[in-house]
Amino acid sequence: MVDLVEIIGFVAATLTTIAFLPQVYKTWKTKSTEGLSSSMLFALLFGMLGWLIYGLLIYSLPIIFANTITLVSMFVLVYFKYRYKK
Amino acid sequence: MVDLVEIIGFVAATLTTIAFLPQVYKTWKTKSTEGLSSSMLFALLFGMLGWLIYGLLIYSLPIIFANTITLVSMFVLVYFKYRYKK
Repeated sequence: MVDLVEIIGFVAATLTTIAFLPQVYKTWKTKSTEGLSSSMLFALLFGMLGWLIYGLLIYSLPIIFANTITLVSMFVLVYFKYRYKK
Repeated sequence: MVDLVEIIGFVAATLTTIAFLPQVYKTWKTKSTEGLSSSMLFALLFGMLGWLIYGLLIYSLPIIFANTITLVSMFVLVYFKYRYKK
């Protein structure tokens, strides 16, 4: 039975992941990555990779769940950044 | 001695926190919160609050550290959102 602590973690994970998706959608729709600085993208990318490794090491499902999804969306953003480079 | 797992957590925490600050700085400088949707801000705000509670419950210093700082910057962004409402 997933305990209360994990439920809190999953609610937090879902909220911060959902908050991230409009940016990915907007970038996909507009094909523009204006305002998305490369340094920010790479800091987020490596930061989330770090969180994913940390989540695996302490075996925290919410951290693994949140960072797997946001990491995938980060790869999408980085792909757009270079695909639609102006 | 802070072990390797915590170090990985702190590196991840620092990266994702740093990645967040340019947005706060840009909003402060331009006094404009255009492109920052309220729903995203509140999802992030409550998401980070959830992560902070989760971090306290599982006693993870990196999660507590990262979410305390980003939560403060979120309050700043929400303050700007309503202070400079157009």
